[in-house]
Amino acid sequence: MSMQNRQIVLRARPKGPVGREHFESKTVQVPELCDGEFLVRTLYLSIDPTIRGWIDRDTYLPAVEIGAVVRSAGAGVVVKSKNPKFAPGDRVFTMVGWQEYAVVADKDMPAPIPPGVELVDALSVFGVTGMTAYFGLTEIGRPSPGETVVVSGAAGATGSIVGQLAKAKGCRVVGIAGSAAKCEWLTKELGFDAAINYKAEDVGARLTATCPRGIDVYFDNVGGPILNEVLARIALRARIVLCGAISQYDNLDNAYGPPNYVNLISRRGRMEGFIILDFAPRFMEGVMAVGALLAEGKIKHKTTVVEGLESAPDALRRLFVGDHDGKLLVRVAAS
Amino acid sequence: MSMQNRQIVLRARPKGPVGREHFESKTVQVPELCDGEFLVRTLYLSIDPTIRGWIDRDTYLPAVEIGAVVRSAGAGVVVKSKNPKFAPGDRVFTMVGWQEYAVVADKDMPAPIPPGVELVDALSVFGVTGMTAYFGLTEIGRPSPGETVVVSGAAGATGSIVGQLAKAKGCRVVGIAGSAAKCEWLTKELGFDAAINYKAEDVGARLTATCPRGIDVYFDNVGGPILNEVLARIALRARIVLCGAISQYDNLDNAYGPPNYVNLISRRGRMEGFIILDFAPRFMEGVMAVGALLAEGKIKHKTTVVEGLESAPDALRRLFVGDHDGKLLVRVAAS
Repeated sequence: MSMQNRQIVLRARPKGPVGREHFESKTVQVPELCDGEFLVRTLYLSIDPTIRGWIDRDTYLPAVEIGAVVRSAGAGVVVKSKNPKFAPGDRVFTMVGWQEYAVVADKDMPAPIPPGVELVDALSVFGVTGMTAYFGLTEIGRPSPGETVVVSGAAGATGSIVGQLAKAKGCRVVGIAGSAAKCEWLTKELGFDAAINYKAEDVGARLTATCPRGIDVYFDNVGGPILNEVLARIALRARIVLCGAISQYDNLDNAYGPPNYVNLISRRGRMEGFIILDFAPRFMEGVMAVGALLAEGKIKHKTTVVEGLESAPDALRRLFVGDHDGKLLVRVAAS
Repeated sequence: MSMQNRQIVLRARPKGPVGREHFESKTVQVPELCDGEFLVRTLYLSIDPTIRGWIDRDTYLPAVEIGAVVRSAGAGVVVKSKNPKFAPGDRVFTMVGWQEYAVVADKDMPAPIPPGVELVDALSVFGVTGMTAYFGLTEIGRPSPGETVVVSGAAGATGSIVGQLAKAKGCRVVGIAGSAAKCEWLTKELGFDAAINYKAEDVGARLTATCPRGIDVYFDNVGGPILNEVLARIALRARIVLCGAISQYDNLDNAYGPPNYVNLISRRGRMEGFIILDFAPRFMEGVMAVGALLAEGKIKHKTTVVEGLESAPDALRRLFVGDHDGKLLVRVAAS
C-alpha cells in the first residue's frame, strides 16, 4: 500500500518580500526505504529567517532548487525504519522539509527528542533557536557581568532568549522590538532593563539614553540602520554578534552598509558572524545551560503555532512582518 | 638665555581634504623644564594618516584643540634634561608634535633609539608603522601558511611591510595600490604574488582572478568600496583587519558603509579594529621579529623625506593623494 506525501516546493526565487506565489503544493508517493533510512511523519515545522536565504541563493548551504521541497527544520515521529538507531514511535528533530513525510538518514543529523520534552520546546528553547542565542551570546558576544548588552529582534524567538541569558549573566540588557506591546513584554515579563520600539521611537536617541556607558555587546538579528546606530555608540572593545540581517534579506542585492563600521577601529571593536550548525557538536552543553535556567524560572518564552502545512508560506512571510510572538511553528499533524 | 620654538598649530578643523589653510605657524619661547622633564630638538616628524583623525574629532585620543601644536610622533635628540633616564645627546622616539622643540616627560612614553639604528628606520620599520603591520597582521589577522592575504594601501609604509610579513609566513599575497609603478614595485621587488592598480583596474574582477580560493585575511588601510569588493570574496572564517579607512577620513560624516558585511554571517567572518598603542608593551617582540626579517633581507622598505617643518601640512595632504613612496617623514633639523 503506497502512501501519499503532500509537499510544498519552491516555484520561484523571491526578488523582494517572500509570499505564497513563490511556492506550490505537490503530492508524491512516499518511496521505499533503503537500508539506513527511516520515515518521519512531520508534526511541526520550525519557521526560521534562514529559510529566506536558502530559497534565494547559495549561502552556507546550497540554495534550494526550483521544484524541490523547501528545506526546513522540524520535529516528527518515526513511522517506519530501516535504521537501527530509530524505531517507530520515536520522536525526532531533523531537517524534515515542508512536507508530511520525510525520508531521513544519518547524514540529516536526526536527534531523538527525549520523553518529557514538549515538541514545541524541542524546536524553540532547546532547538536551533535557543542554541543560536546561547552560543552566539556566550561564544561570540562573551559578555561579562555589568556590561551593557543590546539585542535587536528582541521579542523574537532568539532575541528574547539572548536577553534573558544576558540578564542571568548579570548584564544590563536593552532590547529593540517593533511594538509597544512587545517592549512591555520585554521589560515587564522578561526583566529587560529597557526596551526600544524602533517603529515609534528614535533608536539612536533612546540607545544613548538607555546605554550611558556605551554598548559592550550587540546581538544583531536585523542589520540595516539599527546596526549603524549601535555602531555609533559602541564601547571600547565592543563585540557585534552578527546573527542575522532580517531587514536586508528581501533586498540583498541593494543591502544597506553601516558607515559607522569605522568606529570599530578607534574603539577596537569586533564584528563577527556565526552559523549555529558549526556548534552542533556542542549542543548538549547549550541544552543543559538553557535547561537549568528554564528550571529556575529565569527563562520564559512564547510560541506562536499556525495550523496546517499549507500555511507554511504565509508563516514565513509573517516572520518578516513581525506580527507574531516568540517562536513561530507550523503544526502539520497532531500526532 | 631663552630659546625660540617654531610650531605649527591647528587653525581650523578640516571638513574635507586637509590642506595648509588648516594650520598656521607660531613662534613661542621654550619654557623652563620642571623636574622629570627633558627637552628634545625635533629631527624628524612621522607623517601618519591618524593625524587626520586627531585634528578632526575625538577618537581614541582627544581631538587636538584649535591653537594647539599638531600632535605627531617623531624622533629627536635630547638637548637638556631634568629626567634621570635621559641625558643630552640621547636620541629618542616620542610624540614630539609639529615643532622644533618638545618638552617631554615619562607620560609621553619616550623610547630611546639605540646606537646603530638609523632614525628613519626607527620611525618606519621599527616604529609605529612596522609595529602596526606586525601586530595587526599577527594578532588580528592571524594568517596561516598557504592562506590568501590581501592588503590595501599596499605600497604604503604599513601595507608594504604587511605584505612582506605575510610572504615570510608562507601566504599568497595580493596588494592593492594606486599606480602601475607601485604595483610593479610590489610584485618585482617585494615578492607579492599579484598587485591590483585600483585606479586603472576593476578591483572586483581582479580579486576574483588573483584569489581563486577566496580571501582569508584582508588588511584594510583604505575602507570604502574596495572593502566591499573584498567582503564579496571572503573565504570561510575570514579575518578583516581594520587598520584604517584613509579613503573615508575626509568625509566621515558621510562615510561609506559596506553592504557586503552580511557575508560575515554565512562565511563566519570577523572584522576587527585595533589601535597600535594598545600593543606598546609588546613592541620589543615586534621589533625583534621585524629586525630578524630585515637582517635576512626579507623586508625591504622605502622612505620619502620632505625638508622643513613648514612642509608638514603639505606632507600630510600628500598622504591622502598617495604620490609618495613608503614612509613619509619631514626632516625638521639635520642633527
